[in-house]
Amino acid sequence: MTLPLTSGKYAVQTLIDDHFREECGVFGIYGHPEAANLVYLGLYALQHRGQESAGIVSVEDQFLHVHRSKGLVADVFSRKDLNRLKGENAIGHVRYSTSGGSASQRNLQPLVADTINGGIAIAHNGNLSNGVEMRRQLEARGSIFQSTMDTEVVVHLAALSREKTYAGRLMESLRQVRGAYAIVAMNQHNMIGVRDPHGFRPLVLGKVGDGGYVLSSETCALNLIEAEFVRDVEPGEMVVINKDGVKSYFPFEKEERQLCIFEYVYFARPDSDIDGVNVYDARKRIGFSLADEHPVNADVVIPVPDSGVPAALGFAQKCNIPFELGIIRNHYVGRTFIEPHQSIRHFGVKIKLNANPEVIRGRNVVLVDDSIVRGTTSRKIVKMVRAAGAKEVHVRISSPPTTHPCYYGIDTPTRKELLAASHSIEEMRKYITADSLSFLTLDGLYNAVSGGKSPGKCNGFCDACFSGSYPVLFPQGQSAPLTLLKES
Amino acid sequence: MTLPLTSGKYAVQTLIDDHFREECGVFGIYGHPEAANLVYLGLYALQHRGQESAGIVSVEDQFLHVHRSKGLVADVFSRKDLNRLKGENAIGHVRYSTSGGSASQRNLQPLVADTINGGIAIAHNGNLSNGVEMRRQLEARGSIFQSTMDTEVVVHLAALSREKTYAGRLMESLRQVRGAYAIVAMNQHNMIGVRDPHGFRPLVLGKVGDGGYVLSSETCALNLIEAEFVRDVEPGEMVVINKDGVKSYFPFEKEERQLCIFEYVYFARPDSDIDGVNVYDARKRIGFSLADEHPVNADVVIPVPDSGVPAALGFAQKCNIPFELGIIRNHYVGRTFIEPHQSIRHFGVKIKLNANPEVIRGRNVVLVDDSIVRGTTSRKIVKMVRAAGAKEVHVRISSPPTTHPCYYGIDTPTRKELLAASHSIEEMRKYITADSLSFLTLDGLYNAVSGGKSPGKCNGFCDACFSGSYPVLFPQGQSAPLTLLKES
Amino acid sequence: MTLPLTSGKYAVQTLIDDHFREECGVFGIYGHPEAANLVYLGLYALQHRGQESAGIVSVEDQFLHVHRSKGLVADVFSRKDLNRLKGENAIGHVRYSTSGGSASQRNLQPLVADTINGGIAIAHNGNLSNGVEMRRQLEARGSIFQSTMDTEVVVHLAALSREKTYAGRLMESLRQVRGAYAIVAMNQHNMIGVRDPHGFRPLVLGKVGDGGYVLSSETCALNLIEAEFVRDVEPGEMVVINKDGVKSYFPFEKEERQLCIFEYVYFARPDSDIDGVNVYDARKRIGFSLADEHPVNADVVIPVPDSGVPAALGFAQKCNIPFELGIIRNHYVGRTFIEPHQSIRHFGVKIKLNANPEVIRGRNVVLVDDSIVRGTTSRKIVKMVRAAGAKEVHVRISSPPTTHPCYYGIDTPTRKELLAASHSIEEMRKYITADSLSFLTLDGLYNAVSGGKSPGKCNGFCDACFSGSYPVLFPQGQSAPLTLLKES
Amino acid sequence: MTLPLTSGKYAVQTLIDDHFREECGVFGIYGHPEAANLVYLGLYALQHRGQESAGIVSVEDQFLHVHRSKGLVADVFSRKDLNRLKGENAIGHVRYSTSGGSASQRNLQPLVADTINGGIAIAHNGNLSNGVEMRRQLEARGSIFQSTMDTEVVVHLAALSREKTYAGRLMESLRQVRGAYAIVAMNQHNMIGVRDPHGFRPLVLGKVGDGGYVLSSETCALNLIEAEFVRDVEPGEMVVINKDGVKSYFPFEKEERQLCIFEYVYFARPDSDIDGVNVYDARKRIGFSLADEHPVNADVVIPVPDSGVPAALGFAQKCNIPFELGIIRNHYVGRTFIEPHQSIRHFGVKIKLNANPEVIRGRNVVLVDDSIVRGTTSRKIVKMVRAAGAKEVHVRISSPPTTHPCYYGIDTPTRKELLAASHSIEEMRKYITADSLSFLTLDGLYNAVSGGKSPGKCNGFCDACFSGSYPVLFPQGQSAPLTLLKES
Repeated sequence: MTLPLTSGKYAVQTLIDDHFREECGVFGIYGHPEAANLVYLGLYALQHRGQESAGIVSVEDQFLHVHRSKGLVADVFSRKDLNRLKGENAIGHVRYSTSGGSASQRNLQPLVADTINGGIAIAHNGNLSNGVEMRRQLEARGSIFQSTMDTEVVVHLAALSREKTYAGRLMESLRQVRGAYAIVAMNQHNMIGVRDPHGFRPLVLGKVGDGGYVLSSETCALNLIEAEFVRDVEPGEMVVINKDGVKSYFPFEKEERQLCIFEYVYFARPDSDIDGVNVYDARKRIGFSLADEHPVNADVVIPVPDSGVPAALGFAQKCNIPFELGIIRNHYVGRTFIEPHQSIRHFGVKIKLNANPEVIRGRNVVLVDDSIVRGTTSRKIVKMVRAAGAKEVHVRISSPPTTHPCYYGIDTPTRKELLAASHSIEEMRKYITADSLSFLTLDGLYNAVSGGKSPGKCNGFCDACFSGSYPVLFPQGQSAPLTLLKES
Repeated sequence: MTLPLTSGKYAVQTLIDDHFREECGVFGIYGHPEAANLVYLGLYALQHRGQESAGIVSVEDQFLHVHRSKGLVADVFSRKDLNRLKGENAIGHVRYSTSGGSASQRNLQPLVADTINGGIAIAHNGNLSNGVEMRRQLEARGSIFQSTMDTEVVVHLAALSREKTYAGRLMESLRQVRGAYAIVAMNQHNMIGVRDPHGFRPLVLGKVGDGGYVLSSETCALNLIEAEFVRDVEPGEMVVINKDGVKSYFPFEKEERQLCIFEYVYFARPDSDIDGVNVYDARKRIGFSLADEHPVNADVVIPVPDSGVPAALGFAQKCNIPFELGIIRNHYVGRTFIEPHQSIRHFGVKIKLNANPEVIRGRNVVLVDDSIVRGTTSRKIVKMVRAAGAKEVHVRISSPPTTHPCYYGIDTPTRKELLAASHSIEEMRKYITADSLSFLTLDGLYNAVSGGKSPGKCNGFCDACFSGSYPVLFPQGQSAPLTLLKES
Repeated sequence: MTLPLTSGKYAVQTLIDDHFREECGVFGIYGHPEAANLVYLGLYALQHRGQESAGIVSVEDQFLHVHRSKGLVADVFSRKDLNRLKGENAIGHVRYSTSGGSASQRNLQPLVADTINGGIAIAHNGNLSNGVEMRRQLEARGSIFQSTMDTEVVVHLAALSREKTYAGRLMESLRQVRGAYAIVAMNQHNMIGVRDPHGFRPLVLGKVGDGGYVLSSETCALNLIEAEFVRDVEPGEMVVINKDGVKSYFPFEKEERQLCIFEYVYFARPDSDIDGVNVYDARKRIGFSLADEHPVNADVVIPVPDSGVPAALGFAQKCNIPFELGIIRNHYVGRTFIEPHQSIRHFGVKIKLNANPEVIRGRNVVLVDDSIVRGTTSRKIVKMVRAAGAKEVHVRISSPPTTHPCYYGIDTPTRKELLAASHSIEEMRKYITADSLSFLTLDGLYNAVSGGKSPGKCNGFCDACFSGSYPVLFPQGQSAPLTLLKES
Repeated sequence: MTLPLTSGKYAVQTLIDDHFREECGVFGIYGHPEAANLVYLGLYALQHRGQESAGIVSVEDQFLHVHRSKGLVADVFSRKDLNRLKGENAIGHVRYSTSGGSASQRNLQPLVADTINGGIAIAHNGNLSNGVEMRRQLEARGSIFQSTMDTEVVVHLAALSREKTYAGRLMESLRQVRGAYAIVAMNQHNMIGVRDPHGFRPLVLGKVGDGGYVLSSETCALNLIEAEFVRDVEPGEMVVINKDGVKSYFPFEKEERQLCIFEYVYFARPDSDIDGVNVYDARKRIGFSLADEHPVNADVVIPVPDSGVPAALGFAQKCNIPFELGIIRNHYVGRTFIEPHQSIRHFGVKIKLNANPEVIRGRNVVLVDDSIVRGTTSRKIVKMVRAAGAKEVHVRISSPPTTHPCYYGIDTPTRKELLAASHSIEEMRKYITADSLSFLTLDGLYNAVSGGKSPGKCNGFCDACFSGSYPVLFPQGQSAPLTLLKES
């Protein structure tokens, strides 16, 4: 069923929950008789990293089998599709895309290409900061592009390399690009996982079955397929998996680790470990820090479901205030719904979240959420909680104010749209109509994530969205989206 | 996309979570210019009561507009569909059906019919205990049936009535049937809500907009559309809404209230109030009682998401053991998924739930769930938690053992399939491989639900699934499913 | 793919070819292991009688299996659907419906119902003239209706009968209705074919396989499944097929045969025989008669494809003028297409038909078509032929002017819309911009159809659409469409 | 609806009509406000040249809008799709592909690419004989390929050119390839039509609207949109259309014209003119020649619909034998149908064609068809005609025996599958069970097509499928299909 988007009596509302959006998850299986099926399950577990399209490519002898489409993993693949994806090696990708409307059919991943050295496939989480520049150089020497994804630059550069091995060609290619990437790639005989020198995006290695290997954005996908966690792929590391086993290379100049700290705040699943830190634990500690920094005398701590729950639990434990699920989430909500005309201001949140008056009425409430992006949703939630009878509503945010957009693979609004970019905390409090509003400090966030092991400020994480300190610089004008071709 | 169900390399797994299944939700709007749209939103909020099909009927002058289809509310209705459902009065229905495969196209609700007195529509939550018997009598006098739903019996009986008013005809019809029903019905000028004399199923009355009325299975749907809760429709009460306002009738012999107690345990949404008791609160108190009756010395209390959460919170608070979300639910799971062949025993649960080892490892764990039906899922969850490193796994169930099937509108397995019907608690414990297993007593459940106001045992609730005490008796053989016609 | 019908830049054009529309085809197989599959093929061959929806019902023991949907036969049934339609007896239906938009889901045929005597299914081609009257009587005694089809009246009347056999109950039912019907019906043990006493609609009996029987609207469907033609079911005859073979009954008062003469002009497929007359032959003779009555001195005879071809061949042979396919039909045209805004007057015909200038340029052309209904299409075709270079365009119509609507199962415009109802032939000629325009006389048509065997005027055919002589009278106002319920 | 292709009780039959298959049609509109809509209509008229997929690309400023999909034109484009295809220039493509299953999503046309000089789009009818060779050279220098279509070679070669203009780059590219092509290509400012030096495939230029231009595979598409025919694009000519009007170039060495003679026999629509010869007229003359060469004393001439009709008309006129439509074609047949198991030998033809016994019974019949490829269908048709009562069946084929496959853009079976490659005419006659079988001679075909203007044998046409004289030679092994990548 499709909802026509033209104007009319009812608005079709996209359920914006006003978060930053992870743009991709990658997954690969090497050396397992049910490779495509395990990738399918892996993508299921990584679905939170991208809900707009999904794809799997498998390799069987010299043939690549490809199935990619818009939609959730559960909808994109039929049994017949999986049956066709034969072979013992396969990689997959889930993607979220920023364009208001629909993802282009041309920009589905994994990207496949036919080169003089045979077919290759590549799945990419991240964003290249010199992608447009490199694309222009490649076009100038006669390369033609089929997609608008910067991933295609990597493929072209590798095709031009004179290195003898696939790994060598990919290294030569990646040495020429800058930015954020966790890549899972494959040709007939090899599967390769790479993390950029700063390690912006996570990637882990695991073992599965009898001699098989797994590459995955997060560990939660390993659990699902009962794979054994081996280790994180390190920043700047390339692991090459083939019949000789796993080899590790460090083909790039060493850089300081700059792992995206927002993975801990919101993106990753709580049951994943990233670079050795459990996300659920980190969020609990974030709640502790938040309680330390911004305590409040209240009757009840209520999380904004679902991402706010662990931090709220931590906050409540630390403050010794009862924790209650006072806002109920409707699990049957799709990505859009049809809103009656007259009431357009309210239903966008209420269709998904409902405040339970019995838990809220007459109480001083602490609402714990992970971030405030545009502020529109927070404002609606505060009003809903107040309408359910709350005496006071104190909002506690488990991260610092998000003042800057991300250029390393996350979908964020422009700076202008970020509430915190142009408003003081007091102005924000007024806007969302809360009785008080506090954000975790950046120090508090670092301490919480690193488990009190004090890594030092700006040591090991990218915090550009909070600080504006971008670890990788951009050629002039390059943050503008590249849209040479549109596909309807 | 449809998944072929025939055999092959991969099994298509239905994600059975081994619960009793609510079979329907009903909703109606009288006297609002956007009646169908509000019903659409109401059904969204009642989606947990039935996910197999949805339908709305509106009335405009003497015309009924109908749209019904298999699927979730979000998929069944397009804006174009809602545009066609003109009129200020509308009723809707969500349905769950037991058949392993697909619901018959003929059994979609609301049911509509054309009678000498004009078109009528009816939406029904419940099950008639003398439905087959009455159907046979009606057929014998020449009535023909289009569906296999017992609701159609009510329509035929009303069509035969010589009463002058629609309400009168419906009363005469309902006086001839027995069993469980919460009905929302409608003709050109009237909207009617009725609850059977025992009040097995819930139904509430609200106000919306400027002089409009709402009927709904649960109050959570009133919140969504910002309707005002007026009161529960009482057991045995018929409310008739028309241009003269709301009139109340009690056309049946008075019976003792027998509200389904399982609504509090599992069916209803926690943010609903049923017969004056908030469901979330009741579940918290259930957790308290469970802790009182079956305390355990453990390190952490973990709910089985999502239904087990409030009881687990209550249990943790009472026992003063930390509460943690140690099992993460994947929110992107569809109703089926495709399972690799070799691993068929495990993924059925893991695709949906994943234990977070960081929270569990080395700890004594209390798992709180709401019920054990077949036991297969509980067994898988216990094993998953143990595999995540739990030292001990103690299972606490927030209801008594379910030893008997329900014949009043809930989809339950046959008695043979109910684990508790033929196994002692110790045998069940062994089967699910837990270190200890305890169920809440029926007394404990009554006390918790009634908030300590001690209504007396067997006073006011149907507990047949726990006790085998069926409040309404059945003609011989009537619990067998009625399948005169099949539709492929 | 659906084309939205709301306004916008482009109009979605329905390809009206300005013909009367046959409303249904019926087909049944008794006693064959692949009953449903043969019905599927039979409906394929009868698709020209109705393109809006299709359905098959099979019987297996006491169960009816049903599959019905909007769409062409090729789209409605998948192999899985046919696999489900088990049993050795099955009936099917193709349907055309008049409503500009979409057929109601409730009005799909074959109609099925559950009665005290078991499940029955019925497929009906025709229209009852006292359908609404009988419906009102049935409703008054308490019957409720699920569809707006008059076929349902027949089912209700049969359900009320006290006769012992299914055939007896159907006879008693049909004795109470008047109008046009060719019916194929079925219960667990019997298959029944009936033609109304006037025999408005055709129906034939055949043999298939090893002891199996076929009922079909036309003989062309027998050819496809390699069934043997046995005989036409006679007007007023009911054939009852069961394990005892075929029995024939004449349960109605004898009436004069009034077979729809338009079956020969346009409706039936040319490779069918109807009541002993081959349709292709009849059309050839119609061409002869047309040439005798309205000869023309021209260079080339060109049919309007496809229905005009045999008459044009006959016309050309008789006049000894070369016959050429000067208008080419595009076989890939769907039922609708999207028309650029500026050109809306022309493409409606040109998308489907294209005049070949090479055949037409500089010539005097005779265009042979079967009828003129609204005249809009004829006008466009004449203009197109002239634009292709014709010197003169002489239009010859192989039937008399259609001055009256049909109430016996054919979809015709209202009298007001029929060009011939209010225009002289000279006025019509001017409107369609032809150099000359002639229609076959009614006598000429009778002679041609009966093969020169001079049946006498008004002997044996219904010609109401040409003459206004309706063989069966209507209760007052009954020709108005019955629309108590709408379904969107 | 999709029909699963796995084995089971019923076979899903593809309706093979045993013809050679045209592989593509191309169409372009330059300088018209409704460019995409006119292309849509043009593709409708060219649908007979390819029914597997369709696509349109429009250019609006520097943006290309793309919509391509598998399916018929009527199904591929919705109004919303066309609305998105903004701009005054657009090109389109319909495609037939040989692979037994489904066309790869990657091989949809028009092909689009992003180059240093901006976006380009290209639609190609034909086949390059050095395509694989050039592809290997390009890959060796680092080019990567997204599709397996040889059209992509042309795009890469053009991207490597240092010429200043798009036309110049395309010329440089095409000078490096050999084989058959009619190309319509486009960048932001230019539309280009090219025909290979031999002119294997047709291409015409027309005018439309106020200063707009059309390029089309056939003239029939010009008629539909009421465009004015200007002239055929000549073999070896490139026409470049931009704001300066139309310019003509002859960038290649002059070659003898080798137009595919089968366009006249079967591929083209009868209402098209190709290189100045009307196809319908040519087919009539083919019928005359066939009658001269192979007269027969018979009662009736019957065409195999639809392609055999004009030749049969010519044959009948020349022999003075009555022409009758004795085989009726079912116009509602889809591309596949579901066949009952037991009867698999027959229905493949009968579902589509039915012999009318009334026309055939007791007669000596001449069947006129355009070609015999594998012979299976001819055999079934002869048997069907005989079963309808023919005394004798004489088959006359309006082309010489097809003994060799085509490598210039037509889908033909391998040589082994061509009946005529390994059987004498007498053996073929026996196989198809005809009383006599005759083929038109190659001389007769040349004479008929050139209208008696005696062009001399092998002068001006490619007749390789009849003679084995391939005008363009192939590198060794190049006729093997290129399948480096598969897409499921």
